[in-house]
Amino acid sequence: MVELKEDERLDYLLAENLRIIQSPSVFSFSLDAVLLANFAYVPKRKGKIIDLCSGNGVIPLMLSNRTSVPITGVEIQARLVNMAVRSIEYNQLEDQISMIHGDIKEIPAHFGNDKFDAVTCNPPYFSEGEKVKINSNEHYAIARHELLCTLEDVVKSVSTLLKQGGKASFVHRPGRGVDLLTLMRKYRIEPKRVRFVYPNKEKEANTVLVEGIKDGSPDLRVLQPLVVYNENGSYGSEVHRMLYGQDS
Amino acid sequence: MVELKEDERLDYLLAENLRIIQSPSVFSFSLDAVLLANFAYVPKRKGKIIDLCSGNGVIPLMLSNRTSVPITGVEIQARLVNMAVRSIEYNQLEDQISMIHGDIKEIPAHFGNDKFDAVTCNPPYFSEGEKVKINSNEHYAIARHELLCTLEDVVKSVSTLLKQGGKASFVHRPGRGVDLLTLMRKYRIEPKRVRFVYPNKEKEANTVLVEGIKDGSPDLRVLQPLVVYNENGSYGSEVHRMLYGQDS
Repeated sequence: MVELKEDERLDYLLAENLRIIQSPSVFSFSLDAVLLANFAYVPKRKGKIIDLCSGNGVIPLMLSNRTSVPITGVEIQARLVNMAVRSIEYNQLEDQISMIHGDIKEIPAHFGNDKFDAVTCNPPYFSEGEKVKINSNEHYAIARHELLCTLEDVVKSVSTLLKQGGKASFVHRPGRGVDLLTLMRKYRIEPKRVRFVYPNKEKEANTVLVEGIKDGSPDLRVLQPLVVYNENGSYGSEVHRMLYGQDS
Repeated sequence: MVELKEDERLDYLLAENLRIIQSPSVFSFSLDAVLLANFAYVPKRKGKIIDLCSGNGVIPLMLSNRTSVPITGVEIQARLVNMAVRSIEYNQLEDQISMIHGDIKEIPAHFGNDKFDAVTCNPPYFSEGEKVKINSNEHYAIARHELLCTLEDVVKSVSTLLKQGGKASFVHRPGRGVDLLTLMRKYRIEPKRVRFVYPNKEKEANTVLVEGIKDGSPDLRVLQPLVVYNENGSYGSEVHRMLYGQDS
């Protein structure tokens, strides 16, 4: 049993055998969140994970299928935290996943430094300066634009939360790729694995996944291209498996 | 007529209808040089181009097919400069291409600052610190290892030579990608276009092409993946065209 408010729906996270509360007027998870949840390193049995900018909790929910360690999600929008908490309860994952309603800039003070083995983050993509029309819906605007935190705030908080040798994973737009990589290095998260996501094999990448290690040595690996759509417009086999848990 | 020394050969640059002097014991151009010569921006009718770390002049020779502007090549090894000069003469390109025997660190003093519209560079790949066995052949060792110049020397010289708004293109290993991008930004060459080269579509990238604009604004485009080999082991159509000038 779950209480659904207004236009909320109880959607399937098919590949994970989970369900998640979404709302078209407030927040629905994106393919990018699915890609990040599949790309990110997770400690399997020991350690702790924290996910920043969690939205409706999609990444903690998906990661719970890959590990038994505790996962914390942090989200600044109370309405989304509330959706996440109800999804966690519906899936009976309260023992593993906890949500915090808070500002990522203040989270290191809450937990203390160097506490997490892995941090994931799908931050707002658009910088304050970018001339993209800001979504008039406040919930989407906060999730997509750097209104309440900049990319530098995000990387700085991630680094502070991360143990030495711990791994941080981000998803972002390629347009901000140089900003992300230089900020990671500035805050001692050396980029080690990158994967570019191409809508199809003839198009420019529209998403980048990056994983870094705190105080790691410089040596970047660029993984094989992740191509979302086949030539006939259907999902490529890898993305199909991520979404539906089986080959197409 | 051309004088060939010792084990030199007069090889074809097929796609360009040119010939180039090579020597297995001294220097042979790599696929990376071909990729860079095809990737780089070149001004078509006005301006000047300089190529640093030119080796046997393969990049100036290939670029001459795409533009009529003057091209200067700089190479520190006298033996390779000599090969390049004879290739330029053989192809009757003396009016367009000139070679300088010199150290890239001293080239800005030679030309003055801000003189070039485009700079290309295929630098040594291995840093001094890297535990790769240094080639016992001195010619190859200098071309491949940062013995006579570091990546920072290279990027600094490129930036000094480049006009504001001019474009610089590099080819390198992904392992040094973060170093290259952060050095480019440090020396005011904002990375704008990147292309990753994958041996095949299931493998990690082994080469990265990067173009930056001097004092450009941050906004990186990641071009479609360049896949060198088809599944049957033959060259993919794009690389085949670069090498042979026609579809496979």
